[in-house]
Amino acid sequence: MGRVVIDVMPKPEILDPQGKAVVGALARLGFAEFAGARQGKRFELEVEGEVDQAVLDRAREAAQTLLSNPVIEDVVAVRAASNQE
Amino acid sequence: MGRVVIDVMPKPEILDPQGKAVVGALARLGFAEFAGARQGKRFELEVEGEVDQAVLDRAREAAQTLLSNPVIEDVVAVRAASNQE
Repeated sequence: MGRVVIDVMPKPEILDPQGKAVVGALARLGFAEFAGARQGKRFELEVEGEVDQAVLDRAREAAQTLLSNPVIEDVVAVRAASNQE
Repeated sequence: MGRVVIDVMPKPEILDPQGKAVVGALARLGFAEFAGARQGKRFELEVEGEVDQAVLDRAREAAQTLLSNPVIEDVVAVRAASNQE
């Protein structure tokens, strides 16, 4: 069973209220060293067999079609999961 | 400005309705090769200066305190963001 990791983040220029809320909460909890925060989504997709380039291409297609909103989000990574993950 | 990436995923044994919904939607869109899916969260935290071990330790503490629910989620990665990200 192979696994593909897909990372989706808000576009940098998009207002990120969630990120602002995280930074504010971190500061209130004493983690003032974090000057900024952004929150996105991480997907793991399972496939039969190994993850080859064809699988990665299909995963990127699926990420752009269903797993992200291209108006406000970027697909920042599509890769085979390493064994430590 | 250094950046720390934190990945949070649902614990494997936890029912993941979101993941089930993703797999179902992928199949309906013709991506039937994906047998399973799990959806988690990806954070990027910004710090002044470089990301050293002390910053990573604090980021892990912040992840376990605020950015994840230890009952249903695991912090699966805390690392310095690479330049490609």
